[in-house]
Amino acid sequence: MNILVINSGSSSLKYQLIDMEGESVTASGVIERIGEEMGSITQRSHPDKWPDAKSEEKRPVLNHDAAMRLMVEKLTGEEWGVIGSLSDIDAIGHRVVQGGESFAAPALVDADVVETIRANIPLAPLHAANLVGIEAALELFPGTPNVTVFDTEFHQTIPAKAHLYPIPYELYEEHRIRKYGFHGTSHKYVARAAAEFLNKPLEDTDLITVHLGNGCSMAAVKNGRCADTTMGLTPLAGLMMGTRCGDVDPAIFPFIARTEKLCVNEVDEMLNKKSGLLGICGMNDMRDIHTARAKGDERAQLAFEMFAYRVKSFIGSYLAVLGRADAVVFTAGIGENDPEVRALACQGLEGLGIRISGERNGKRCAKGRCISADDSPVQVLVIPTNEELEIARATKALVAG
Amino acid sequence: MNILVINSGSSSLKYQLIDMEGESVTASGVIERIGEEMGSITQRSHPDKWPDAKSEEKRPVLNHDAAMRLMVEKLTGEEWGVIGSLSDIDAIGHRVVQGGESFAAPALVDADVVETIRANIPLAPLHAANLVGIEAALELFPGTPNVTVFDTEFHQTIPAKAHLYPIPYELYEEHRIRKYGFHGTSHKYVARAAAEFLNKPLEDTDLITVHLGNGCSMAAVKNGRCADTTMGLTPLAGLMMGTRCGDVDPAIFPFIARTEKLCVNEVDEMLNKKSGLLGICGMNDMRDIHTARAKGDERAQLAFEMFAYRVKSFIGSYLAVLGRADAVVFTAGIGENDPEVRALACQGLEGLGIRISGERNGKRCAKGRCISADDSPVQVLVIPTNEELEIARATKALVAG
Repeated sequence: MNILVINSGSSSLKYQLIDMEGESVTASGVIERIGEEMGSITQRSHPDKWPDAKSEEKRPVLNHDAAMRLMVEKLTGEEWGVIGSLSDIDAIGHRVVQGGESFAAPALVDADVVETIRANIPLAPLHAANLVGIEAALELFPGTPNVTVFDTEFHQTIPAKAHLYPIPYELYEEHRIRKYGFHGTSHKYVARAAAEFLNKPLEDTDLITVHLGNGCSMAAVKNGRCADTTMGLTPLAGLMMGTRCGDVDPAIFPFIARTEKLCVNEVDEMLNKKSGLLGICGMNDMRDIHTARAKGDERAQLAFEMFAYRVKSFIGSYLAVLGRADAVVFTAGIGENDPEVRALACQGLEGLGIRISGERNGKRCAKGRCISADDSPVQVLVIPTNEELEIARATKALVAG
Repeated sequence: MNILVINSGSSSLKYQLIDMEGESVTASGVIERIGEEMGSITQRSHPDKWPDAKSEEKRPVLNHDAAMRLMVEKLTGEEWGVIGSLSDIDAIGHRVVQGGESFAAPALVDADVVETIRANIPLAPLHAANLVGIEAALELFPGTPNVTVFDTEFHQTIPAKAHLYPIPYELYEEHRIRKYGFHGTSHKYVARAAAEFLNKPLEDTDLITVHLGNGCSMAAVKNGRCADTTMGLTPLAGLMMGTRCGDVDPAIFPFIARTEKLCVNEVDEMLNKKSGLLGICGMNDMRDIHTARAKGDERAQLAFEMFAYRVKSFIGSYLAVLGRADAVVFTAGIGENDPEVRALACQGLEGLGIRISGERNGKRCAKGRCISADDSPVQVLVIPTNEELEIARATKALVAG
C-alpha cells in the first residue's frame, strides 16, 4: 500500500510517499515559494538507498493546484519517478494544523469534513492552506481516499480545567477560544513508541513528551491520553522557541504596543517571529548558539539557560499534573540531537526521580534509547519522531477499516 | 516605637498604626473614594481590645493631602484617637508596588529615593499613587523618617534565566520589560514565619509560598531567597485570580482584539477585571463559589477546579525549580481559610512528597500550623500573612539601624 502524505503550507507543499509494507519512504519532496515569481521543487527518491541524491529544479509554481501537478509529474517522471501513475497511490493523508473541537481522531474526507475544516479556519487563519491542499488533491486524485490528521486531535482529551482559559466564558462559547495544543501527531507518535520501548501497554503508561524543534511543546500523557500540553489557542504559547516567546505575562502585549507605539499585528509578529532564542541572542538555531557559547557569548549562554529552564519548569508542572510518570521523552531536532539541552533541562531533578546518565546522554544515535541512569525511577528516553509516518499509519487504518 | 504603615492607592489610603513593642495594632483605617464627590473614612482603634468597634464617617476627601490630614485628625482626635499628636509617630512605612530593578531592599526616603520611584512609574502607571502618598507624608510629617517597602524587592534575587522574557532583548535594555513579581512583602513575611515554624534557619530553607487572596501569586524560595515567582512585569501573570486571567496564550490578546473588535486598552481591561473566577462563573469570591457549587452550579465547579489546577501545576513547576522543598506554605484570604482549595491543589501530589492530612486541613485556626500528614516528606503549612507588620518591621530596622 502506497500512501502519499501531504503537508500543505501557505507557500509550500511537502510530501512523502510511503510504502506501508516496511513503512519505508519511497520519495520525499518539498515545493517552495508557491505563488511567487520563481518557485522550486526538491525531491529525494528512495532516500534509504541513495541518501545523498536529490533532484532540485527551479520554476514558477502558480498555485497549490500547480504544485500538486508538479509533485505528480516528479513522482511518476522518467528520471526521478518512483511510481508508474497516479493510480499507484492508494490513499492520501493530509496534515491539518487546526481541527478545533470537531476532530478528536483522523477523518476520511468527504464534503462534510471539508466544510468542518473550513469552519475552523478563523481559529488558525494562517493555516487555511491546509484546506487548499486537500481541495487540490480531491480534484487531482478523484477516487483516491483522502484522510485528514490533525495536529490538535491528540489534545482533545485534555479536561476542561486545563483547556479552558480564565477569561470571560462567552469567548469560549462564541469563538471557541480555548487551548487546542499542536504537534499532537508527534506527541502521539512518540508516546506510542515510548510505551513500546518501555514494553508497557500505552493505556497504562504515563509520560511527559518533550518536542523540541523549531517549534517546541510538551504534553502530559496519562494512561496514553493527553492530559495537558503547553501550546494553546495558537502555537505561540508555552515553551520558549526559536523565534516565539512562549508564555509571558499577557500584559506584555499592551505594554509593548504602548511603549513601542506598535499596532496589535506588529506586536503579534514580534512575539512570533523576533522573540524566543532569536530575540535573546540573535540566533534561533541551537547549534549556532552552542558554538557562540563556546566562544564566550553571554547572550547565547543566557538564551540556552532560559530555554532549558522553561523545559525543566514544565517537567515539574506535568509531574504534578500526572502525579507520577514512567518516562520523560525527548524528541524532534533539539530533543533528539542536543545532549546539552537535555542535560540542563533535567539538572537538579534527581529529587523528583529523574537522573540522566551523562554517558548515555552524550552518545549519538538515530534510534530510540534510554538516557537515564539505571536507578532513575523516571526513565528519560530519546525517541525520534516521525509525523509523516504517523499520518500514513492513521490514513492506512481509516482506509483499511 | 509607633510606626505608621501607609498603603496609598489611586483613590484610597489604608493605614495601620503599630506599636512595635508587642507588635500590636493601635489603630487601622481606610479612607476611600478620594477625589470623588463623597468619600469615607473607617477606623478601628485598639482592635485587639474592641474588635467590633469602628468609626465610620462620610465626607468629601479632595486629594491625598486631605486624606492624610483626615487620618491624623482621626488618630489624634478625642473620640477615636490613639495618640496625642503627630510627634508620637516615630516613623512611617510606605507600601510601594513597583521598585523596578532599583530596590532590592527597603529604603529610607530622601530626594533620590523619591526620584527613583518616580522614574519607575512607567513600569506600573496604575500605582503612581504610591508616590503621591509618600509626598503627602513628607509634607505633613516633616522630620519623621519615611521608609519605602517594595512589593517587588523580595523577587530581585530571581536569576536572569527566570526573570527575563524570551522577547527582543532591546525591550529589556530600553524599557526594563522583565518579570518583577509582586506580593513580595507577603512572600517574604510567610517565608520567614515558615522557617521559624520549621525551626530552621531561613537561609537553609526551601519553600513554595502560595499567596491566594483576591490577587494570587506563588514564589519558589531557595535558601530563603526568591528563585522564581508567578507574577511578572505586571500582576496579571501567573495564577488564575478573582478577576485576572493569569498566564494564557499571549496570542489571546490579538485574537480577542480582532474577534471582538476591541482596542488594546479594552482587552487589557477585560483580562484584568472581567476574567479569572469572575469570567468563568460570574463570581469572584471563592466563598460564593463554594455556595454555588454546593447547589450544583457547574460553572462554579469549573472555576474552582481551574483555580486549584493552576496552583497544583505551579507547585510541580517550583519543585522542579528548587529540586526539593521543606514546605508548601499557603497564605492570604483563600490560602489561610479555604481547606477545599488547599485540598484540591495538593490532590495527587503524594508521589511528589506532598500529603495533606484531611483532619488538620479541615480545622479552622488563625495561627500558623501544619496541615500535612506526619509522614509527608514535604510539609504543608498555613501561615497567616501580615504585610503591614512586615513593612513596620522593615521600617523599624532601617530607622533603628
